[in-house]
Amino acid sequence: MSYTAPIKDMLFSLEEIAGFDAISALPGCEELSADLAGSILSEAGKFSASVLAPLNRVGDTQGVRYDDGNVTMPDGFVAAYQQLCAAGWNSLVPPAEYGGMNLPYVLATPVREMLKSANHGFCGSYGLTGGAVEALLAHGSDELKQVFLPRMVSGEWSGTMNLTESQAGSDLSAIRTRAEVQGDGTYRLFGQKIFITFGEHDLTENIIHLVLARLPDAPPGVRGISLFLVPKFLVNFADGTLGERNDVRCISIEHKMGIRSSPTCTMAYGEQDGAVGYLIGEPNQGLSYMFTMMNEARLAVGGEGIALAERAYQQAVGYARERVQGRDALTGALNVPIIHHPDVRRMLLTMRARVETARALSLMVAGMIDQAHRNPDADVRKSQLALVELLTPVVKACSTEMAIDVTSLNIQIHGGMGFIEETGAAQHYRDARITAIYEGTTGIQANDLIGRKVLREQGSTMHLLIGRMNRTAADLQQAGSPDLNAIGKRLEQAIGQLRAATEWVLATGTASMNLVLAGAVPFLHLTGTVCFGWLAGLAALAATRRLGEAGADRDFLDAKILTAQFYCAHELPHAESYARTVMAGDQSAMTMREAQF
Amino acid sequence: MSYTAPIKDMLFSLEEIAGFDAISALPGCEELSADLAGSILSEAGKFSASVLAPLNRVGDTQGVRYDDGNVTMPDGFVAAYQQLCAAGWNSLVPPAEYGGMNLPYVLATPVREMLKSANHGFCGSYGLTGGAVEALLAHGSDELKQVFLPRMVSGEWSGTMNLTESQAGSDLSAIRTRAEVQGDGTYRLFGQKIFITFGEHDLTENIIHLVLARLPDAPPGVRGISLFLVPKFLVNFADGTLGERNDVRCISIEHKMGIRSSPTCTMAYGEQDGAVGYLIGEPNQGLSYMFTMMNEARLAVGGEGIALAERAYQQAVGYARERVQGRDALTGALNVPIIHHPDVRRMLLTMRARVETARALSLMVAGMIDQAHRNPDADVRKSQLALVELLTPVVKACSTEMAIDVTSLNIQIHGGMGFIEETGAAQHYRDARITAIYEGTTGIQANDLIGRKVLREQGSTMHLLIGRMNRTAADLQQAGSPDLNAIGKRLEQAIGQLRAATEWVLATGTASMNLVLAGAVPFLHLTGTVCFGWLAGLAALAATRRLGEAGADRDFLDAKILTAQFYCAHELPHAESYARTVMAGDQSAMTMREAQF
Repeated sequence: MSYTAPIKDMLFSLEEIAGFDAISALPGCEELSADLAGSILSEAGKFSASVLAPLNRVGDTQGVRYDDGNVTMPDGFVAAYQQLCAAGWNSLVPPAEYGGMNLPYVLATPVREMLKSANHGFCGSYGLTGGAVEALLAHGSDELKQVFLPRMVSGEWSGTMNLTESQAGSDLSAIRTRAEVQGDGTYRLFGQKIFITFGEHDLTENIIHLVLARLPDAPPGVRGISLFLVPKFLVNFADGTLGERNDVRCISIEHKMGIRSSPTCTMAYGEQDGAVGYLIGEPNQGLSYMFTMMNEARLAVGGEGIALAERAYQQAVGYARERVQGRDALTGALNVPIIHHPDVRRMLLTMRARVETARALSLMVAGMIDQAHRNPDADVRKSQLALVELLTPVVKACSTEMAIDVTSLNIQIHGGMGFIEETGAAQHYRDARITAIYEGTTGIQANDLIGRKVLREQGSTMHLLIGRMNRTAADLQQAGSPDLNAIGKRLEQAIGQLRAATEWVLATGTASMNLVLAGAVPFLHLTGTVCFGWLAGLAALAATRRLGEAGADRDFLDAKILTAQFYCAHELPHAESYARTVMAGDQSAMTMREAQF
Repeated sequence: MSYTAPIKDMLFSLEEIAGFDAISALPGCEELSADLAGSILSEAGKFSASVLAPLNRVGDTQGVRYDDGNVTMPDGFVAAYQQLCAAGWNSLVPPAEYGGMNLPYVLATPVREMLKSANHGFCGSYGLTGGAVEALLAHGSDELKQVFLPRMVSGEWSGTMNLTESQAGSDLSAIRTRAEVQGDGTYRLFGQKIFITFGEHDLTENIIHLVLARLPDAPPGVRGISLFLVPKFLVNFADGTLGERNDVRCISIEHKMGIRSSPTCTMAYGEQDGAVGYLIGEPNQGLSYMFTMMNEARLAVGGEGIALAERAYQQAVGYARERVQGRDALTGALNVPIIHHPDVRRMLLTMRARVETARALSLMVAGMIDQAHRNPDADVRKSQLALVELLTPVVKACSTEMAIDVTSLNIQIHGGMGFIEETGAAQHYRDARITAIYEGTTGIQANDLIGRKVLREQGSTMHLLIGRMNRTAADLQQAGSPDLNAIGKRLEQAIGQLRAATEWVLATGTASMNLVLAGAVPFLHLTGTVCFGWLAGLAALAATRRLGEAGADRDFLDAKILTAQFYCAHELPHAESYARTVMAGDQSAMTMREAQF
C-alpha cells in the first residue's frame, strides 16, 4: 500500500480555489512563491511516502504498549519522529522567532494532509503539540513562552490537551479537576483526565500537558474553568533543564478500534501531593482559550478525514486496475480488470469527487484563515473570519463523515479481500471512524452551525456564502459551454434548496429550537453537499479555462470536469432530500417518550 | 451488553405484515398457531440471550486459533453448539423425516435473527450446514441423503459451501478446481478454495464440504461446473461410521476485521492423491444448483444485517438512557441523560425506523417464500416466487447497508466510548461490514435487481409490487386520520419516483446497458427506500386499527405511527435523490479513461 501525494490536485486547488497568489502578497508571506510551494509539497510528499507510510500498518498491528505508567511506541516511530522534527514538518505554522516555519495555513494544510494520509495514528505525536503551542502563543506569559515554546516547536518536548473527564465529554461544564493555589505562584492539580492523545509515550524527554481545571473559588459551569501548564518533568526555568518527575501519571491506555499507534491515555494528576502546574493567562478563562484553538483543531480533524479518504481512494484505484474479474458489460471481453465495471467506476468516482471537493473546501478555508490573520484590511479580516467560523463545522463534520463512506467504499471495491486485515483497507475504515467523534461529534458540529452560527447571526454569513455560490452558478451558466451550463443549473437548484432551508431555520429557530435541532445534522449535510458542489463547479470552471492554455494537462483537467458532472448527478441530488427533511419540521423524534424507544 | 429478543415487534410483523394466519392455514402448517409461534420465539429468545449473547465478545477477543490444519474455536463455543443442536435451533426448516423442525420460513426467520443478534460469528457454525442440507435435499441421490442428511440435520456433522477461488470471487465462471473420474463412481478433487466459512473447526467430528469443481470434459465457463460432496473424514456408507481422513486440509485462516469467531479458511483439496468426492445431481449443473440456494443465502445475510442493527439499537438506547451529559434544550435542566437531546433522538429513531422496516420486509418475504412453497394454487405460487426473487436483492443489500449505517450510529451515540473495544459497539460495526460483501456484494445485488429481474421480465413484477404499494398509499389516505393521510401522501410521491425510475430503466436498459448499470446501486437504494416506507405505512395502518381494540398496547402502537412519520420525514426523501440520480443517466463514470482515475 504505497502512497503518492496528490500534489497536482493540491496545487490546482491552491491556485484556483484557495487564492494562493493573493495570499503570497500578504504581509509576512513575501517570500512565498508558486515554486517554493511546489518544492515544499514535493519534499513533504517524499517524506510522507518514504518515512511515514511504511510504518502505518506496523503501527496498527503492534499498537502501543503500556507498562506501569510508561508507553512504548511501535517499532520505527521514535526514529520517524526525530526525522519529522529535523525536517521541521512538525512546526509549519509557528513563528520563526520560536523556530517555526511561519507558513501560511494554505500551505500547511496540504502538507498536513500528506502526513496524515501516510500515517494517521502517528500524527497525534506532533499535532497536539501544535495546539498547545498555539495556546501558549496566544495566552501564555512571556516566561512560560520563553521556557517552553522553543523546545515544543522544535519537537524536543511534546504537548497535550487535557479536557475530557469521564463525566465531562461533550459537556466541559462538568469538569471536576481542581487546582490549589500555592504560595509561590504555582498551583497543585488533582483529578483524572481521559482520552488524552499522546498523554504518555517514549518519543520525547518531556511532555507538556495543558490541563483544564477549577480554582477553589471558581464559579460553577463553563465560566469557572482555568487552563494550566503541567509538565511531566518539572523544568528549571533558568536554563530549561529537567528536574524532578511531576505528580502526573498515565494510569492506563485505551484498546481502540483504530488509530492503534496513537496512545489514548487516562492521566492521573495529584495521586500524591498534587501535580505542579502554572496558570496560563487569566483565571476562569480556560474554556474561552480552548475555544480559540477549537476551530483550528476541528479543521485539522476534518483534514484527517480528507487524508484517510485520499489514501483509500489511491488504494481502491490501484486494486481496481489490477484485480481481474468478470466480463466487460460493453465489449463482452472476458476477465477484465474490475475498473471496467460500471459500478466499480461509480464507486471510484464517488470517492474521487468527494475527496477532491472536500480538499478544495478545506484549502479554501485555509486561505480564508490566512486572509483573516494577515490581510491589512480589517473589513476583509472580519468577513473572512466569519466565513471560516461558518464553514469550520462543515469542513469538520462533512469531511469526516465523507471519510467513513469513502474508506467503506474502498473495502467494498476490494470485496472479500477488503475484510482481510492484511489488505490494509480495513485499517483506513477503522481509523476513520474516530474522526466523526473527537473534537466534537457530528451532532455537535451541526448544533454549532445551526445555533451558534446561522441563528445567532440571523443568517448573515450564510447569506454571504450563498451569494458567492450563486455567482459561481451564474458564471458556469454563462461560460458558453453546455457541460458547464448543466453543472451551473444543477448547482443553482441546490443552492436554492439551501437558501430555502436556511430561511426555514431562521423562521422556526427561535420559537421551536428543538424542531430545528432535530434537523440540525440534515441541515449540516445539506450545507456540505451544496458547498462541495460549489467547489466542484469552481474547479470545472477553472479547468475549462486552463484547457484553453498552451501545454494544458488535458487528462487532469478533463477529469475535473467529469468529476463535477458526476458530483451533480450522484451527490448534489441529496441536497433536495436533506432540505425536505429539514423543512418537514418533523416532531416524531421529540414526541416519542423515553420508554417508547 | 445484554440482548433482549424483540418478540413484540416480531409478532406484530408476523401477524400484520407477513400474513401469519394465512400461512398457518397452508398444507404442512396445520399445527402452527399464534400460541405456538409465541412460545417458539420466546424459547429462542431465552436461548439467544442466555447462551449465545454472553459469548459474543469472547469470540471477538479470542478469535479462532489455527495450528497445523486444525482450528480451535473460542472458549464456550463447543458447549454452546451442542446446546443449540440439542434444542434444534440449528435445523428449523428441514423436513421432519430427517430430524428437522419443518417450520415455515416466516417462523424460522425471526428465530434466526435472534441467534444472529446474540452472536453473529457463531451462526456460521450451523448456517452453512443449512445451505448444504438444502442442496442435498434438492439434488442429492437417495444414498447420499440417507447417509449424510440425518447427521447434518442433527448437527452431529457440519457442512460448508466451497465456491470461491482466489481468481474466482464474484465471477464463478473462472473456477479451476478439477475433479477426476474414478472407476468406482467416485471422484478425486484437486484445487484450492478460499473464504470457506467454518471450513475447519472443532465443533463436530466430521465436516461435509460441498465443492464446485470442473470435470475433465466440462465446457468452459459457468456451464462446466459440477457440485461434489467431499467429507473431511470418509464415511462408511453402510453404517455411517467414520473411516480415513480424506485428502482435504485447511491450510490457513484469515485475519479479519470482524466475525473473528467465524473461521474463514483456505481449503486445499488433493495435496496428495486427491480428495474423494461424490457427484451431487447431474454433471455440469453445479452452478444452477447453487443458484437455487443463493436466494435463500442472500436473504439469510440480509437477516444478519437486521440482527446486528437490532443489537446495536438496543445498546444505543441503553446507553442513551444512562449516559448523563449536557443540558436539556427544551427545559434547560442540567445533566440530563443524552436521550433528551434532539440529535440523539434523531439517531435512535433513525436506527429504530430502519431496523423495524427492514425486519418487516424480510418477514414479508419469508411469508412469500412459504406461500411460494406451500400454496396449493399454482398461480399464487408463481406470483409469490416472482416477488421473492425481485425483493431478495433488496432485502440482502439494503438490510446490510442499513446495518453498516445503524451500527455506525450506535458508535456515534456512544461518542468516544464507542471507539473503545470494551464497549462492544465497535464489534457490531466491524462484524456488520462483511454482510454487504459476502453472498454477492451490493453492486452484484443491484445488477441482479436491475438486470436479471426488472429488465429481463420487462418490469412485470416491479409493476405488481408498485401496484401493491399504491394500494397501501391509498388506504393510508382514506383511513380518516390526518397522520395516516400525511404518511400516505408522502408514500405516494415516493412510489411515483420509483415508478418513473423504473420506466426510465426499461426505456434505457436495452440500448445503453452501461448507463443503467452505472445507476444500478442508486436504483437499488431507491427501491429499498420506497419498500421500507411502504412497510412503515403498513405498520402504521395496522397500529391505528389495533389502537381501537380493547387492551391495546398504546406505547408500542403509538411508537409504530411515530416511527412511520419519522421515516417519511427523514428517510423517504432520499427516494427522490436516488431517482434523480438514476434518471440523470450520467455518463461521466464511463467516460473517464482508466488512466484518469
